[in-house]
Amino acid sequence: MDTRQTLLDHCSRHLGTLRNEGRYRDFTRLEKIAGRFPTYRWHGPGGQGPGGAREITVWSANDYLGMGTHPAVLEAAAGAVAAHGAGAGGTRNISGTSPLHAALEDELASWHGKPAALLFGSGYLANQAALSALLAALPGMEVFSDAMNHASMIDGMRRSPAKRHIWRHNDLGHLEELLRAADPAAPKVIAFESVYSMEGDVAPLHAICDLAEKYDAITYLDEVHAVGLYGPQGAGIAERDGAAARIDVIEGTLAKGVGVFGGYIAGAADLVDYVRSVAGGLIFTTALPPPTVAAALASIRHIRADAALRERLASRAAALKAALDAAGLPRLDSHSHIVPVPVPGADACRAVARRMLEEFSIYVTPINYPTVPRGTERLRLCATPFHDDAMIAELVRALGEVLRVAKAA
Amino acid sequence: MDTRQTLLDHCSRHLGTLRNEGRYRDFTRLEKIAGRFPTYRWHGPGGQGPGGAREITVWSANDYLGMGTHPAVLEAAAGAVAAHGAGAGGTRNISGTSPLHAALEDELASWHGKPAALLFGSGYLANQAALSALLAALPGMEVFSDAMNHASMIDGMRRSPAKRHIWRHNDLGHLEELLRAADPAAPKVIAFESVYSMEGDVAPLHAICDLAEKYDAITYLDEVHAVGLYGPQGAGIAERDGAAARIDVIEGTLAKGVGVFGGYIAGAADLVDYVRSVAGGLIFTTALPPPTVAAALASIRHIRADAALRERLASRAAALKAALDAAGLPRLDSHSHIVPVPVPGADACRAVARRMLEEFSIYVTPINYPTVPRGTERLRLCATPFHDDAMIAELVRALGEVLRVAKAA
Ligand SMILES: Cc1ncc(COP(=O)(O)O)c(C=O)c1O
Ligand SMILES: Cc1ncc(COP(=O)(O)O)c(C=O)c1O
Repeated sequence: MDTRQTLLDHCSRHLGTLRNEGRYRDFTRLEKIAGRFPTYRWHGPGGQGPGGAREITVWSANDYLGMGTHPAVLEAAAGAVAAHGAGAGGTRNISGTSPLHAALEDELASWHGKPAALLFGSGYLANQAALSALLAALPGMEVFSDAMNHASMIDGMRRSPAKRHIWRHNDLGHLEELLRAADPAAPKVIAFESVYSMEGDVAPLHAICDLAEKYDAITYLDEVHAVGLYGPQGAGIAERDGAAARIDVIEGTLAKGVGVFGGYIAGAADLVDYVRSVAGGLIFTTALPPPTVAAALASIRHIRADAALRERLASRAAALKAALDAAGLPRLDSHSHIVPVPVPGADACRAVARRMLEEFSIYVTPINYPTVPRGTERLRLCATPFHDDAMIAELVRALGEVLRVAKAA
Repeated sequence: MDTRQTLLDHCSRHLGTLRNEGRYRDFTRLEKIAGRFPTYRWHGPGGQGPGGAREITVWSANDYLGMGTHPAVLEAAAGAVAAHGAGAGGTRNISGTSPLHAALEDELASWHGKPAALLFGSGYLANQAALSALLAALPGMEVFSDAMNHASMIDGMRRSPAKRHIWRHNDLGHLEELLRAADPAAPKVIAFESVYSMEGDVAPLHAICDLAEKYDAITYLDEVHAVGLYGPQGAGIAERDGAAARIDVIEGTLAKGVGVFGGYIAGAADLVDYVRSVAGGLIFTTALPPPTVAAALASIRHIRADAALRERLASRAAALKAALDAAGLPRLDSHSHIVPVPVPGADACRAVARRMLEEFSIYVTPINYPTVPRGTERLRLCATPFHDDAMIAELVRALGEVLRVAKAA
């Protein structure tokens, strides 16, 4: 056998299958424009206009509050570039920890009302490293995982020796059934999210914490799609619902509502220090760059104080849903700023998104397998405080037209 | 059982053990100063001086060429902050791919002489995601791994179904023995590094590629500690040795020689596209921020053209080794810019580093278990083009004094 050729053949065959199933992903080239969010420049086929790119409206950004281009954030990033340069130059233990890193960890702990917090290179690494470390800490641990938990959480659970029980999404009857059936002596962890990013629905935190208490389980909550967006200071759904004290580990990202890059966990001091001391995904990788850390710190400080931003997010999300409903357009039953519009079939979903972009200069991401189950493909709309009434009207008009044509075809 | 309390008890007991064994890691707070590399500000116990921090010389930075604070890099980072903001605002597939990301991938491919390259959030994620994807591509794959391979590679191999054979570090006789004993029909991958970061030695690339050819294996090379530093254009040891065409996958980081943040792989187009299409550690995480990407691109463009920087690195490394030898100080037999000084015993190693910092304002990282085997603790010195003769003389004087006192104690 020629191993190299066999491998390459396998790769190209797999890519051919993806193409045939309409699941091959071309990454659309989009350029953010500071100060103009959610207007971007589209570079790509059909995007060529004066200046080489066409201006479009993005409806699928995870920079949910536009903080990635907020003046206070840019100022902090630029200041740190000038003062400290572009990279940390080492792992956290090998010269890569600056006072900025420590200040951001303090800020995150205080934000979530926890004694300690720990930065990671991303929310992905935070989930992977923290879950695998925690689930290996005690012998015989068992983890109870919501069926729609994110790939990074699944990754962390799979990398641990813990037995994994999967409860139907947000179905607490099923969760209790599984908890009741498990060995009462096994140490248990319940792992779940607050806002589910492909559904837009929200977990009932207190009810889950009630079960955790009843069955003596620890709670691990991913607030990635909620931090910045919900609660009096924007610390997430746990803050909004007054449930933060009942959650053992809160995990979050700096890359969505906060608008920058990186991830973290917050929790009890010894627990966080333990993860810091044992997690390979923290020990063996370069620390976040000083400008990233400074930008995230400035963003969170702004977010905590700016409740009006969150009110505007809520009212824009409500306006988007009302406009879709008034136009008779389909949508999932969202309880958040994320509003999925179902377009079943990978090919159909991609084609609709492509026409929205080419004909209406509106970018919406088509979501297909493996991110969601086959047959439940969807466009994922995210409202932000910067999507005004005119943008909503334009989106609804375009979507109505494209979906009508798609149905007739 | 009270699971929460049991877990916290486990954590604090483990932290106590680390403290007792001298392996508890306090992250020293060091502040990079743009334009002054390798001078940093030390914030911490004993570091308080005028302005709240003491200036020190860092001898353990992985910003090997000082590119993290190079003016061209800072200008690119600041320009991207002003133009595009602080974050990408999405995964690569969900509005997070900008023309800058595509340009950096093109630059990386061209640098390594490969048809394609793919960015990751870090070198850690690149190894983990690429190795686990590749090793799961063909049924019955077996991987041959150097005993000193990095934790991120081990992580990627462990997460795949592939059978793992470990060859003694840089011992090609042993590698061939294992290859010969393996099933001839099994598709094989040899995974190794070029410069080993805790030893400072260099793998014999051509000899390994000879074995790969003989036994029909694919080659996967981690050039993390070599990119920017070796070869006519700084593409690494594979470029220096004229072996790049014989390596199937080259993996690197943007966080060390390049001075910024992020990781990547380079290789055949379909192979890279395959990893792009299946790797969870790429699909399910936010794209690198535009300023990080712009900074890395500017850094690599500078590095490729500036051979004098590499010559100065080589001469500084030679001067460091000569000075250590002349002073009769111990060091490992390094063939690179990384020069480990053995100080066996975790407590002893930490104490020596602490005295270097407090008494001589020199920062050197003590490296202990699990990064290196117990009993082989060491200080890890890294020469850079900016460590001048006076700094070397001061380092050798301080080290001589501290080690003499440590021995006498
Ligand atoms: C629920 C959830 N958790 C974690 C992550 C990973 O966060 P990051 O993008 O910071 O890696 C994501 C998406 O990216 C997510 O959707
Ligand atoms: C050999 C090796 N590979 C990969 C990595 C990970 O690279 P990064 O810091 O970009 O995650 C490191 C160290 O950090 C390393 O030493």
